[in-house]
Amino acid sequence: MELNNLALLTDFYEFTMMQGYIKAGKQNERAIFDLFYRTPPSGSGYAIVAGLAQVIEYIKNLQFRAEDIEHLRSLNRFDDDFLEYLKTFRFSGDMYAIEEGSVVFPNEPLLKINAPIIEAHLIESALLNIINHQSLIATKASRIVYAAGDDPVLELGLRRAQGPNASIYGARAAIIGGCSATSNVLASKMFDIDVTGTHAHSWIMSFGDELTAFRTYAEVFPNHCILLIDTYNTLKSGLTNAIKVFKELKAKGAVFQKYGIRLDSGDLAYLSKVVRKELDEAGFSDAIICASNDLDEYSIQELKLQQAKITLWGVGTNLITSGDWPSFGAVYKIAAKINPDGEIVPKIKISESPKKINNPGDKKIFRVYDKNTNKIKADLITLVDEEIDLDSDLTLFHPVETYKQMTLKKGQFYVKELLVQVFKNGECVYKPPTVKEIKEYSKAEKETLWDSSKRFKKPTKTPVDLSPKLLELKTQMIKSIYAKGDI
Amino acid sequence: MELNNLALLTDFYEFTMMQGYIKAGKQNERAIFDLFYRTPPSGSGYAIVAGLAQVIEYIKNLQFRAEDIEHLRSLNRFDDDFLEYLKTFRFSGDMYAIEEGSVVFPNEPLLKINAPIIEAHLIESALLNIINHQSLIATKASRIVYAAGDDPVLELGLRRAQGPNASIYGARAAIIGGCSATSNVLASKMFDIDVTGTHAHSWIMSFGDELTAFRTYAEVFPNHCILLIDTYNTLKSGLTNAIKVFKELKAKGAVFQKYGIRLDSGDLAYLSKVVRKELDEAGFSDAIICASNDLDEYSIQELKLQQAKITLWGVGTNLITSGDWPSFGAVYKIAAKINPDGEIVPKIKISESPKKINNPGDKKIFRVYDKNTNKIKADLITLVDEEIDLDSDLTLFHPVETYKQMTLKKGQFYVKELLVQVFKNGECVYKPPTVKEIKEYSKAEKETLWDSSKRFKKPTKTPVDLSPKLLELKTQMIKSIYAKGDI
Repeated sequence: MELNNLALLTDFYEFTMMQGYIKAGKQNERAIFDLFYRTPPSGSGYAIVAGLAQVIEYIKNLQFRAEDIEHLRSLNRFDDDFLEYLKTFRFSGDMYAIEEGSVVFPNEPLLKINAPIIEAHLIESALLNIINHQSLIATKASRIVYAAGDDPVLELGLRRAQGPNASIYGARAAIIGGCSATSNVLASKMFDIDVTGTHAHSWIMSFGDELTAFRTYAEVFPNHCILLIDTYNTLKSGLTNAIKVFKELKAKGAVFQKYGIRLDSGDLAYLSKVVRKELDEAGFSDAIICASNDLDEYSIQELKLQQAKITLWGVGTNLITSGDWPSFGAVYKIAAKINPDGEIVPKIKISESPKKINNPGDKKIFRVYDKNTNKIKADLITLVDEEIDLDSDLTLFHPVETYKQMTLKKGQFYVKELLVQVFKNGECVYKPPTVKEIKEYSKAEKETLWDSSKRFKKPTKTPVDLSPKLLELKTQMIKSIYAKGDI
Repeated sequence: MELNNLALLTDFYEFTMMQGYIKAGKQNERAIFDLFYRTPPSGSGYAIVAGLAQVIEYIKNLQFRAEDIEHLRSLNRFDDDFLEYLKTFRFSGDMYAIEEGSVVFPNEPLLKINAPIIEAHLIESALLNIINHQSLIATKASRIVYAAGDDPVLELGLRRAQGPNASIYGARAAIIGGCSATSNVLASKMFDIDVTGTHAHSWIMSFGDELTAFRTYAEVFPNHCILLIDTYNTLKSGLTNAIKVFKELKAKGAVFQKYGIRLDSGDLAYLSKVVRKELDEAGFSDAIICASNDLDEYSIQELKLQQAKITLWGVGTNLITSGDWPSFGAVYKIAAKINPDGEIVPKIKISESPKKINNPGDKKIFRVYDKNTNKIKADLITLVDEEIDLDSDLTLFHPVETYKQMTLKKGQFYVKELLVQVFKNGECVYKPPTVKEIKEYSKAEKETLWDSSKRFKKPTKTPVDLSPKLLELKTQMIKSIYAKGDI
C-alpha cells in the first residue's frame, strides 16, 4: 500500500456527502477547514507536529483509478454523475501548515485547507490519520529523549507497532522527535535515517555456550560489538564472557568504533552500576551500556534518578505505540464557508464545553517570543488580515477566562508566523526538508520551550490566545446562536 | 507500501545475525521458533488470533530487490558473500499456524516455524508485527461486540488509527473480531467487507440551517438516511427536524432500508431514551438509534445497564488503537535446533519468572472440549510425536503449580489439533478463507468459550497445560542449566 494509491482511504460518509454536495449544486462552494488538536498526549505540555511530507505525497497522488470507481459503483449508493466526476478528480485547493518538527499547542490549526468543500471533505480522514499518527509518536519520542538527557535513544518498536506502516512512519516520527536511530531497516532506507542493532537471545541460544556465541559475533563485527549479556546470568556469565571477548578483541588490535553490552532484563539500575564498575576495572571505560525492557520516559527518569550507568537507551513498545496514550485526537472542523462572491462566512460548532467550541473564520497564527530568552511567551491566533504591531505593547488574553492577561512591552518581544503555504490551487509550493533536517529543526524548536513546559507532571501550559477581533467574532457568533433559540 | 515489498521490514540485528550465521558456517542449520503471547490484552480471558493471510502474503513475496541490497551495502556492515546470498533468498521452510479467528490462550504457539535458522531470523520482526497488530484489534473488537450483545457494532477508527495501514488492517481485524461493517472504504475494497456511513457535523454547518441540511441529505439518500442530530441541540432542534424529514420521506413513499438518527455527544443513555420515545410516538419505531463518542466495551456495558435505547454502536479510537492496551506483546522464541542428522535439540531460555520460561522442543497443541457442552476444557501442548488416547481418561496438570489437576473421563471429551500446516518447503499449502468466512468462524469459536471467560473483570483463565512428557523435558532442562552453574 503506497501513499500513491490511497484515494479510497477515507470514511464512507465523505463520499455520501460529496455526492450530496453535487446533488445540491454546491460542488463549487469553497470552505475553510482547520485541523487541530485539543489535548497534548501523555499529559504533555506541548506536542511535536509531524507527517506533513506524507500528507503532501498523499494529495499529490490523489486520483481515482478505474478499479476504485468500480468499487464505489458496486456499493449501489452513487450515481453516474458523481462517479464520472471522480474520474478526473484532483485536489485544486490551497493548504497551509505548521512545519514538521514544530512545537505546537492545542486549538491552533496545524493544517488549514481552503478548497472546494467537496475536495476538503474527501481528504479529511487521510489527513487526520497521517497527522494524528506521526504527531503522536514524535511527541512521545520527544518526551523519552528529554528523559534520557544527553544519552542517545534508539527506536526498537517494529515488532510491537500497529502494523508494518505504523512501524515505518513511527520510526520516521521517532527520529523527528529526537531518537538517534531505529532498528527498522526499511525505514532507514525510505527516510535516510540511521539504523542499528546487534543480536538477540536466540543467537546465544543457537550456540552451545555463551562464550562461543559472543566470540563468533565479535569475529564477524569486531568494530561494532554490543553483546547482549542477560541470556543465562547477567553478571556471573554474560558480563564475564563479554569482558573476556573484549580483551581478546583488544589483543587482536580491533578498532572499537562502537562496543559494549546490552541489558534486557532485571534491575537495570543495579546491574548497570556493577557492569560499569567491572568494565571500567577491565579497562573498558568507553564501553557502551545499552538498556532495554519496556522502557518509557517515566522509567528512564527513575533509572536516571537512581544513578543508573546506562549510556544508550533502547525503547520499543511504549514509544512506537505511545503506550499510555495511543491516539493524538486531532480533529478537522469547518471554520468558514466562502460564498461565490468571495465573502467569508465564519462557521462555529457549539458545545457544552467551551474548550470544544472551534475558532471560526480564516485565521493565521503568530508565535510570540521573549526577546531576552528566545522562549515562547504565547501563540496568538488572529484573523487572516490582522498584523501585529511590533512598535506597540501587546496585550494577550486567555480565550475563555479573559481576565487572565499579560502585556508584553514593545521591544521585548518578537513574532513569527507559523502557517506556511503548502498547496496553491492544487499545486505543491513547498519542498519538505529531509528527516534529518526536521530532527535538527525540532531540536531547536524545543529550545524555545521553557523548562516548566517540558516537565512530565503538571507542565506549564503555553497560552494560545485569540486576537481581540477574533474573540469578538467568536463571542458574537455564540450569542447569536443562543439568541436564535437553537440551543 | 504493499506487502510484496517488505523484505527490509525487519530489525537490523536480524541481518547482522544472518551474516554471523553464514560466517560461522551455520547457514544450513535449522531451528524451530514459536510465536506466542503471554498475556491477553485488556485483561481479557482469551484472545482472537488474526493476520495469517498477511503473513502468508509477506512470505510468498519475500525477496530482495537490487535497491534493497544496495541499501544494505551502503551501511558498510555486510560483506559481498552475504549480499550475494540475499539476491536469491526465498523462504524455504515449513510453517504451522492456528487459523485466523481462533480463540487462543497464552503460551501456545500461534505460529511455529521450522526453517534454516537464517531464514527464521529474517522473518521474525514482520511476523510479530503483523500478528501482534491484527490479534490486538480482533481481540478488542471481540470484547466490544460482546458488550453490545445483539446490536451491531461499526468500526469507525480510520482517522485515529496509527497510520493508513493500521486503519486498513485494523478494519480487517475488527470485522474478524465481530464488527458488522467499517467506515473505511479502502478496507472494504481490499477485503470485501461491508462499509457504512452517512454525514458529519460539517455537512449540517455548511448549510444555512439544520432542516435544509437534513432535507438535502434525505433527497439524495432517501433509503439510507441516518441523520446526525447533535450539531446544535439534540432534542430541541436535531430530533424535531429529523422527525419532520422522516415524515416527509414517508409521505413521498420512500422505502426505508436503513434510517434513523445518530448521537455523537451528550448523555447517550438519557438522550437515546427520549429519542426512542419520540420516534416511536411519531410512528418510527424501526428507526435506528446509532451512538458514537469515545465508546469502548466498558462504556457500552454501562449504557446497556442503564437501558440506553441504542441499537447501533459506532466505535472509533478505542477500537482501532486498542486504547487501554495498545500492544499485543507476542514474542518469537527459539524452541529447538535441528542438527544436520535430523536430531531435534530442544532449547530453553531461563527467566526469574517461571511464566517467562519458554516451552522447549517441537510441539503441537490439542484443544480439549467437553462433550456435553462443546466448551473448551483446556488446551494441551505436547511434543510433536504425542497423541491423545480418547479411550482412556485424560489427566491435565497446571504447568507450574502441578498440584492443580483435572481428570476428564473417557467419552466425556474430544480433541482438535490447532496447528495447521501453512508452508511446506517454502511452498504455501494453505488457502486463507475470506474475511467474512473468518468472521463466521470466529463467532463459532467464541461459542466454545464459557461465559466466565468472556467477563471483563476477573475472567476465568482457560488452562493451557503441558503433556507429562513435555513437562518432564522442560523440568530436566531447567535443572541441568542450574546444575551447570550458569545461573
